[in-house]
Amino acid sequence: MKALVYHGPGQKAWEEVPDPLIVDPTDVIVRIETTTICGTDLHILKGDVPAVTEGRILGHEGVGTVTEVGSAVSSVTVGDRVIISCISACGACTYCHQGLYAHCLAEEGASGIGWIFGHLIDGTQAELVRVPFADNSVYKLPEGVSDVAAVMLSDILPTGFEIGVRYGHVKPGDVVAVVGAGPVGLAAMMTAGLYGAARVIALDVDRNRLEQARGFGATDTVDSSDADWADQVRAMTDGLGVDVAIEAVGIPATFEACTQVVRPGGSVANVGVHGAPVQLALQDLWIMDLSITMGLVSTSTTPMLLKLVAQDKLAAEKFATHHFSLDQMIDAYDTFGRASETKALKVVIKR
Amino acid sequence: MKALVYHGPGQKAWEEVPDPLIVDPTDVIVRIETTTICGTDLHILKGDVPAVTEGRILGHEGVGTVTEVGSAVSSVTVGDRVIISCISACGACTYCHQGLYAHCLAEEGASGIGWIFGHLIDGTQAELVRVPFADNSVYKLPEGVSDVAAVMLSDILPTGFEIGVRYGHVKPGDVVAVVGAGPVGLAAMMTAGLYGAARVIALDVDRNRLEQARGFGATDTVDSSDADWADQVRAMTDGLGVDVAIEAVGIPATFEACTQVVRPGGSVANVGVHGAPVQLALQDLWIMDLSITMGLVSTSTTPMLLKLVAQDKLAAEKFATHHFSLDQMIDAYDTFGRASETKALKVVIKR
Amino acid sequence: MKALVYHGPGQKAWEEVPDPLIVDPTDVIVRIETTTICGTDLHILKGDVPAVTEGRILGHEGVGTVTEVGSAVSSVTVGDRVIISCISACGACTYCHQGLYAHCLAEEGASGIGWIFGHLIDGTQAELVRVPFADNSVYKLPEGVSDVAAVMLSDILPTGFEIGVRYGHVKPGDVVAVVGAGPVGLAAMMTAGLYGAARVIALDVDRNRLEQARGFGATDTVDSSDADWADQVRAMTDGLGVDVAIEAVGIPATFEACTQVVRPGGSVANVGVHGAPVQLALQDLWIMDLSITMGLVSTSTTPMLLKLVAQDKLAAEKFATHHFSLDQMIDAYDTFGRASETKALKVVIKR
Amino acid sequence: MKALVYHGPGQKAWEEVPDPLIVDPTDVIVRIETTTICGTDLHILKGDVPAVTEGRILGHEGVGTVTEVGSAVSSVTVGDRVIISCISACGACTYCHQGLYAHCLAEEGASGIGWIFGHLIDGTQAELVRVPFADNSVYKLPEGVSDVAAVMLSDILPTGFEIGVRYGHVKPGDVVAVVGAGPVGLAAMMTAGLYGAARVIALDVDRNRLEQARGFGATDTVDSSDADWADQVRAMTDGLGVDVAIEAVGIPATFEACTQVVRPGGSVANVGVHGAPVQLALQDLWIMDLSITMGLVSTSTTPMLLKLVAQDKLAAEKFATHHFSLDQMIDAYDTFGRASETKALKVVIKR
Repeated sequence: MKALVYHGPGQKAWEEVPDPLIVDPTDVIVRIETTTICGTDLHILKGDVPAVTEGRILGHEGVGTVTEVGSAVSSVTVGDRVIISCISACGACTYCHQGLYAHCLAEEGASGIGWIFGHLIDGTQAELVRVPFADNSVYKLPEGVSDVAAVMLSDILPTGFEIGVRYGHVKPGDVVAVVGAGPVGLAAMMTAGLYGAARVIALDVDRNRLEQARGFGATDTVDSSDADWADQVRAMTDGLGVDVAIEAVGIPATFEACTQVVRPGGSVANVGVHGAPVQLALQDLWIMDLSITMGLVSTSTTPMLLKLVAQDKLAAEKFATHHFSLDQMIDAYDTFGRASETKALKVVIKR
Repeated sequence: MKALVYHGPGQKAWEEVPDPLIVDPTDVIVRIETTTICGTDLHILKGDVPAVTEGRILGHEGVGTVTEVGSAVSSVTVGDRVIISCISACGACTYCHQGLYAHCLAEEGASGIGWIFGHLIDGTQAELVRVPFADNSVYKLPEGVSDVAAVMLSDILPTGFEIGVRYGHVKPGDVVAVVGAGPVGLAAMMTAGLYGAARVIALDVDRNRLEQARGFGATDTVDSSDADWADQVRAMTDGLGVDVAIEAVGIPATFEACTQVVRPGGSVANVGVHGAPVQLALQDLWIMDLSITMGLVSTSTTPMLLKLVAQDKLAAEKFATHHFSLDQMIDAYDTFGRASETKALKVVIKR
Repeated sequence: MKALVYHGPGQKAWEEVPDPLIVDPTDVIVRIETTTICGTDLHILKGDVPAVTEGRILGHEGVGTVTEVGSAVSSVTVGDRVIISCISACGACTYCHQGLYAHCLAEEGASGIGWIFGHLIDGTQAELVRVPFADNSVYKLPEGVSDVAAVMLSDILPTGFEIGVRYGHVKPGDVVAVVGAGPVGLAAMMTAGLYGAARVIALDVDRNRLEQARGFGATDTVDSSDADWADQVRAMTDGLGVDVAIEAVGIPATFEACTQVVRPGGSVANVGVHGAPVQLALQDLWIMDLSITMGLVSTSTTPMLLKLVAQDKLAAEKFATHHFSLDQMIDAYDTFGRASETKALKVVIKR
Repeated sequence: MKALVYHGPGQKAWEEVPDPLIVDPTDVIVRIETTTICGTDLHILKGDVPAVTEGRILGHEGVGTVTEVGSAVSSVTVGDRVIISCISACGACTYCHQGLYAHCLAEEGASGIGWIFGHLIDGTQAELVRVPFADNSVYKLPEGVSDVAAVMLSDILPTGFEIGVRYGHVKPGDVVAVVGAGPVGLAAMMTAGLYGAARVIALDVDRNRLEQARGFGATDTVDSSDADWADQVRAMTDGLGVDVAIEAVGIPATFEACTQVVRPGGSVANVGVHGAPVQLALQDLWIMDLSITMGLVSTSTTPMLLKLVAQDKLAAEKFATHHFSLDQMIDAYDTFGRASETKALKVVIKR
């Protein structure tokens, strides 16, 4: 088969590789019909994720058809169309029993996290992929849900919802600020309505992205390069600050922005992937009754989000801005890698 | 002033009565600008609520302007426009500290519940009303919210939301059945979206009301006089039943309908006011992991719902089907009393 | 091997049967070292559970050593000592993902519940037992926990805790009434302290059992055959009633007793297995803001309770009142069947 | 009357001052019978809290008898014995409605927090004190609860419980580490059992305090000056880290210690008052699914804790290590100020 193979920092190729085989009785093989590229894939290509070794097939998002099933798999059969979750989960360890699949203790490799595709094992940017622990890692696609919508449930929509909206304890009537209007920030904005947010304020330094945010559920926008950005945000509340501030960038400045505009008793939910420590002003914040959360998606809400997509309650397909075929994989990476210029949110790559 | 006075079963009059006076330092007097009629008022007029004595001014919903404040009132001042909550709360007892204002222990009279207007003290279907415990019982009306929308926050919207949606633990992705498409059932349908319901199924025996329900958030309707109504409902789920069944009628048949279509692990939220016991089939249900709830609204969510109305996230004014002036109070009762014929949901009565 | 076989109503024998074999790759075989008898086994023997057919080996509680493992089992290996949960769970269906193992959709047979041992498949009152879905159905026994304590985690302690204490929302400071001081009622009393109950009131008609209850966490006792039993209970509260009433008998009178002594805003948690409908006085209760729950144990808390037993925070072994060897199985049934006379709580049967 | 008056950094005197008077209709006057000293009082005396001005009477903890009530006070009357909460709350603002009394918006002065005694208004280290918003700020003392136990409910026990145990989401079976075995750390240890902690690990650099901790609920102790302290802690868990880490010191090192020993999916609850920022290693922690919380006590749980004290479920009086009379106030400060030497936890000062 053909696949997108990592050959060390800056090096990748769409090339011929051996077909994957069933290894464990809980495995399935899926023929990829739709996949996409995540910001994490770009980090890997820069060499930022040393656990990814040369020869690894990248990608952790995908929709396809089951072509082979292991002897212990009961939930899917050959021919079923499925969403592949970006997180693999054994379903039996203490973390899986809590729904915290991101920390599954039985994963392949030794990283201690449930994200293994395109990381510790071969991934989904390929014609075929082996999926371990299939009973807990793939979800049957109902009639009437498009591949394009479905592939957004592999990672991006559950990430915005679980790590942003749910960890942030969004409640009906809340004012929610989302700092960063990239794909994951937009996913948080789109799903904030599932808990009845009254206002969703998008913050970014790019006015085009702010405009785009209104199509994903933002009711208000603030240019965070304005000197008075924090006052603008507070003016959209009762003066005390936002109920929930969601960080969707991954740098100290945006994390600190969240702690500056949250009200006493509010929540800061960090979704961004950070590469450096942040300063937490506990001398001021200790008295504020804040909850600060962070985490990797568990995709425990993928089946629930799928119901909402099937009922036309979530317009998941809106994230798809550019379309490619599998053999245009390199072009797709190029378009996604120049997102600020191409305005790409998610590039969809189909068989 | 003029007021609607109860003179015993079947007897009422819009007549001259003395103006109310401040009694306690925590009282305010409000000049009523908008009021409405509740199904409970009709029950009182039939003589079904013996605690209501002759001479009582009826009504427990209203919007108006504060004309006088007691010496210990700090949250409002003369001239403030306010929503009057149907529930009076001292703010200091053990139930108020839990937000369970319906069971405030400090209420006037001795009924043991927080509903006192038009019941144990004079009510809001009048030109003026005395409001005890004002700091916990009136809410300032922000600019841009109409009286018509605001008066729906006195009782009906918080009732549907608190007793139906919140007690029913509606969660994102849920399938919710609402049995009874009258005003309170519609209030539950309208607010089910605040917790991200995927489907809201309206059940009623009246096809006109079912049609109307679609304007209030119902995604599906079932005529509950159909022989196969339960199968129709289950076909809208994964076959196991609904996640939440909300009873909004108040008779044994509709309560039992809820227990028949709820899935294992689901919730039945009773909103209806019942006059007779129901049979609970515990021999079948003990194994079902159900939660069955019931209650009187506390209006603890009125300020939150007001934020959503102010942000155009809840179209509260949709309940208003007929409009009257205060001196047409008797006509308003007539229209509301013949609701099945007039198709009245809420009749709005303005100064 | 030898096993306790059901031969129709009133008929049982400890007799030679074929050894169980691995059927599915997710199975293990366990050599039983300790088992016990549940009230449900007595019901089956009376013929009350028609799903149990002649020839079935009874029993759903046990501790033993794994002697054989299927090819897809990863969490245990031959020689591991394990607790067998009374509930079998696939770990991959929608109910398992919620921790509601009692309603696992992948169970053997077709009853729609996760209780299959000694019911739909052969059980644990035997020298050997086949355990399906082993990765989600057995728990390794740590050093220092006795078999006698451990076998109480197969069913009775999780039942009292999950269905009584957790469904009843017991909170720190609560006054909890437990109606019925049999084994499952005592399990609720013993675990009510895990959520900080201030008072635990045991109610029963048998004064010996009330006395015994004090050893299991009851702080107060009330003879429920006293004419003023309800007043006695209310006198132990602030006059408003108990925060949580737990039903642990399974008849209409005890269920109704719970609704009579619970305070507004409180919870009634039904643990008893009922054979007849109960009357729910909704004409009085609709206004009470109650939560009424019921259910079959999922044993999702077995690993957690095991930690508490291992730390000497739960004296699980207290339930063991009588001891037998496997070949005294018939005697054990006799002693347990005459519990009111023998004062048996749990009879422990060891290899 | 006599009172302890602050006269600028390092200066205090027990001296004659005018008796307090009722100012607002919601005030009461309380004759202090028992008071105590908090670490915060020592900070004020060092000049660390500039909002405290010269002439201020210090103290925010106390038990006494109501001697005068304002016209709008309904919950207490002259002669009632009461606990004075360290937090004043109007009971009517948005924060009070959430039980977040620490952030009451109606407080006297302008600090924006509910702690005003001995801070923005005169405090409880005096023969008499004026208590504003009495209906929400004092709690009647039941028969059988000693003053010594009761005064621990003004601040220290609710602080350990609300900010440590509840914000830390302690659950049955949890392993809880408490970093810092001073009074507030001990309060967290004592109340961790209210949510069923399986192990409570006390960490401190002072071996005497560690020994003392065992009397307050610690099941294990670790000397945090040991080089391998973190490994010792992890060895008391399943190897993954503690479920909850409670910071009870207020310096960067102890905060960071908490983030080092908490497991993925766990909680860090900061109780300490910090004077400097801390570094949060988000580059490692972003993936850990942590909740980090902090806050000022609201004393919303004082009535609940009082029930547990009244039922002998919390040995609150254990905190009292030294006893003085009011006219020995200066000696009491001296003893408490040299706590590392005198081993004082709480000094009790009685009329």
